Amino acid sequence: MKSIFTLFGLVFFASVFGQTIDKDETKNIKEFYNIALSEQQGYTWLDHLCNNIGPRPAGSDNADKAAKWAKTELEKLGLDNVWLQEVDVPHWVRGAETASLVELIQEQDLAITALGGSVGTPAEGINASVVEVTSFDDLEELGEENIKGKIVFFNIPMDPTNFNTGFSYGMAGKQRWAGAAEASKYGAVAVLTRSLTLKKDNYPHTGSMSYGDAEVKIPAAALSIEATELLHEKLQTNTGLTISLVLTCKSLGRTTGYNVIGDITGSEKPDEIVLVGGHLDSWDLGTGAQDDGAGSVQSMQVMSLFVKTGYAPKRTHRVVLFMNEEFGLDGAKTYAEYSKKENINHVIALESDGGSGTPRGFSFDTNMETVEAIREFKSLLAPYGLHDYAKGGSGADINQLKSEGTILIGYRPDNQRYFDYHHAYTDRFDIINARELELGAAGMASLLYLLDKYEVEVIQK
Amino acid sequence: MKSIFTLFGLVFFASVFGQTIDKDETKNIKEFYNIALSEQQGYTWLDHLCNNIGPRPAGSDNADKAAKWAKTELEKLGLDNVWLQEVDVPHWVRGAETASLVELIQEQDLAITALGGSVGTPAEGINASVVEVTSFDDLEELGEENIKGKIVFFNIPMDPTNFNTGFSYGMAGKQRWAGAAEASKYGAVAVLTRSLTLKKDNYPHTGSMSYGDAEVKIPAAALSIEATELLHEKLQTNTGLTISLVLTCKSLGRTTGYNVIGDITGSEKPDEIVLVGGHLDSWDLGTGAQDDGAGSVQSMQVMSLFVKTGYAPKRTHRVVLFMNEEFGLDGAKTYAEYSKKENINHVIALESDGGSGTPRGFSFDTNMETVEAIREFKSLLAPYGLHDYAKGGSGADINQLKSEGTILIGYRPDNQRYFDYHHAYTDRFDIINARELELGAAGMASLLYLLDKYEVEVIQK
Repeated sequence: MKSIFTLFGLVFFASVFGQTIDKDETKNIKEFYNIALSEQQGYTWLDHLCNNIGPRPAGSDNADKAAKWAKTELEKLGLDNVWLQEVDVPHWVRGAETASLVELIQEQDLAITALGGSVGTPAEGINASVVEVTSFDDLEELGEENIKGKIVFFNIPMDPTNFNTGFSYGMAGKQRWAGAAEASKYGAVAVLTRSLTLKKDNYPHTGSMSYGDAEVKIPAAALSIEATELLHEKLQTNTGLTISLVLTCKSLGRTTGYNVIGDITGSEKPDEIVLVGGHLDSWDLGTGAQDDGAGSVQSMQVMSLFVKTGYAPKRTHRVVLFMNEEFGLDGAKTYAEYSKKENINHVIALESDGGSGTPRGFSFDTNMETVEAIREFKSLLAPYGLHDYAKGGSGADINQLKSEGTILIGYRPDNQRYFDYHHAYTDRFDIINARELELGAAGMASLLYLLDKYEVEVIQK
Repeated sequence: MKSIFTLFGLVFFASVFGQTIDKDETKNIKEFYNIALSEQQGYTWLDHLCNNIGPRPAGSDNADKAAKWAKTELEKLGLDNVWLQEVDVPHWVRGAETASLVELIQEQDLAITALGGSVGTPAEGINASVVEVTSFDDLEELGEENIKGKIVFFNIPMDPTNFNTGFSYGMAGKQRWAGAAEASKYGAVAVLTRSLTLKKDNYPHTGSMSYGDAEVKIPAAALSIEATELLHEKLQTNTGLTISLVLTCKSLGRTTGYNVIGDITGSEKPDEIVLVGGHLDSWDLGTGAQDDGAGSVQSMQVMSLFVKTGYAPKRTHRVVLFMNEEFGLDGAKTYAEYSKKENINHVIALESDGGSGTPRGFSFDTNMETVEAIREFKSLLAPYGLHDYAKGGSGADINQLKSEGTILIGYRPDNQRYFDYHHAYTDRFDIINARELELGAAGMASLLYLLDKYEVEVIQK
């Protein structure tokens, strides 16, 4: 009999929190998928967000437009208490950015882009020789005598052999977020870093960086993989070449942005909050289709699916579209402070910020007993590609709400393609597959539906 | 302890065919992935196959070129007995293909493509009014009085609500393969069928059709989804419109094509054959990148990975690249006849013909006891996205080898995007993700390695 139950995804006998799982759940969950896949409301929203609004860096007019648009859309769904929460955000803007590789009298342009938060170069640019490093240990070995006055070229590839591309991203990430701070301590005048991607093309990938405790702030830009390989190649035979670098990016100080918030008030436990969200801001190079337009519209779609199926949740379900995940988590911090001040009880928070890939599963930041209990629902969701139910991290925004009493959950789509487009010009609507996006939204809605209906909460040890 | 074992993918205590699984298998399997993901040989081969050779319909010069190229590549790997097996194949060629929707004096072009095997129209074309049907029952209800002399427009959408897009394809497929045969019985002069895809764009999707026992052969072409929707819309208000259809496609009779075959001779059981394959032919509109260039190079890559890791299989492992899966399975039938005549013992056959998506698992066509035994390997392969181990079909080519003594296996990548490009102009190299392709090859190699090392065979009941 085992195989037959598996085949139809039925789990008559499983028990969660002392309750037998209703045999109609297979049908109830299918309804979320039917609506999402046939109406594709999330995909339509994302089209608007990317193609009618565009890039949404914190502090930009577009970020404000996106917030106002999302508020209007949530109001159209008939949510309760739709509002914009003010967030103090930094406003950094990109300008001209060029790098020319100079060999004797020949010049060749390298595809670069300033890292988020970088200072600009002097108006006349920086012209300096280049020293390549493949680790942070190299900096120490080379020392000030070999680095001072030069441009440090960090060439630390993401490891292609890991199945989990996010792991490889984390391992190679330091060159971007700390390369400038570290190199400046040895007297470097600028840094160029290998883009954090596994795809070989000519698009550079930006992302946030920090000067930490560095006394001197030096300009920092990412090279495309093709430019990285070219520069590496040239340096094998000509260590005397120089690069002429111009960056006119700059900080415009701080301004006001907005989180977007809307509720479906709980029918039985209105003071228990289940949060679902993504971040509405994006980097400025593409239009933030996967990062994190996808997670934003999936979160909106979860609310829409609750409304359209007529499911009245016991707990209050709240969508939060956070402002400025990319460059300081200001929206998440502001919401967390508000939550603490108002003593809001978040029993569950789910974030989608892993892109728009085909569904793989969820990651749970809570104790193992609670993860094991939630796994009882697996046979209902695995038929939709949701096989992974790991204990692990959740999402950068909701992580600000971390507490023993809150189950934090990260939606985990397939991430093989994610870093191909991450923070680059190519993160645009045309890379989005409507079905993969909507399967994510329906999967998120299905999980939250089950967690609500069976009143799942952290199992206190 | 359970969670720790799961985390590291170790299965010290599992037993397959009376043997304890070696704790080093995690490391051994990682080696296949390391090579595939870092060298990307399959991706490089596919680039050549698509961009230097191109579309490979049965009977074409390109199909022959592809076979000769593949033979050379397999010889370079050092395989044993690399040879081309002659296959008698049909040779059908596309020509001009236009459809104009005529309303009074206005004309509007509709994007169409002839279905594979269709007869052409008379040189002057066919100009006839159109009758839309949404099921085969409609044909019977309308009857000869409403169909005779007209063009039948089949508009049967693929159901978007199934997670398994292949299931929806099967359900809607009859309009393509039998639409013309059925409509001709009621006196239709041609058929236009909705493309079998879930993506709304203006590319029509071809595919094989058959006239079955129809006395009159009428021309058949697929409409793009945009053209389908336009035509449907127009027919709501103007039932008198006509379509002017020209197709100059034709059959050129039969010719000779080739299967490509190469072995790694088994070290202990050379007479037991494990086959891995895909089909080298493609439709003519794109370059057959996913269908089935992907499966072809993945199969070649399996052999390459065995060579490069130095694993000497106990059984003989044979790659077969079949000719003409798309339009008659001639290569598969020829190989099966040869196999029967030579009394070849295929213990296992694995086909990759489900595209180039990210890995999901395998489907097994054998008895349930054998499937359950193979599932003991799941914890080794699940860390690479291979979660599905269903009993089900395998592949159209290897299905010709079906017998009680052979385990038939289909590689099952994610198929959410598959029908977006299937049999259309868009099935080109640029839709291929290198990592997803190589993960498939490494997963296939890993499974075959385990099945060989632990001498898995059909469990006789």
